[in-house]
Amino acid sequence: MTFAALPKPPYYAVIFTARLAQGADGYAETAERMEALARTMPGYLGFESARNEDGFGIAISYWESEDAIANWKQNAEHLEAQSTGRAKWYEDYKLNIAKVERAYEMKK
Amino acid sequence: MTFAALPKPPYYAVIFTARLAQGADGYAETAERMEALARTMPGYLGFESARNEDGFGIAISYWESEDAIANWKQNAEHLEAQSTGRAKWYEDYKLNIAKVERAYEMKK
Repeated sequence: MTFAALPKPPYYAVIFTARLAQGADGYAETAERMEALARTMPGYLGFESARNEDGFGIAISYWESEDAIANWKQNAEHLEAQSTGRAKWYEDYKLNIAKVERAYEMKK
Repeated sequence: MTFAALPKPPYYAVIFTARLAQGADGYAETAERMEALARTMPGYLGFESARNEDGFGIAISYWESEDAIANWKQNAEHLEAQSTGRAKWYEDYKLNIAKVERAYEMKK
């Protein structure tokens, strides 16, 4: 995992916080596929994720606009993954949709 | 780590994405102290973090307002931790300051 290469703000962030259920068969493959699919969507800007050993993880996708987020949310293959996620992979999750207003970075 | 208990939007998120340097002596203690200190700040709402084994991590603090974020940024002990972080702990980092406009959650 590395930093998303983002334009200057404003842009949008979908912050997905989730705890994976024990086992979670098929999760890794679908997560990888969803990341690849998101990359082909209009308005996609980037993706970052991290997960603790206990299953608690944060995944952030960055988008040009709210319309781009709405379009991705309704993608058929993504809808199926969301449904499987709710039924099988996640114990709990939370989505925060946010408008990034400012950004700073430090690189060594 | 568990989910931050957040009010209804709008509120603000400071998304801190960073790669830890090898070693990073003293980092864990300071991170813990900063989390405890942030909790005492006006306008603090919550904190969530996750880190991959390779050192790439995402930490999000949630705040009531931009003023609350500015106030926390200027806290003396926090300024010292920021300075040590830049010099010693982080290879690279990025800050995205965002206004959370919508939120959803699923609990089992």
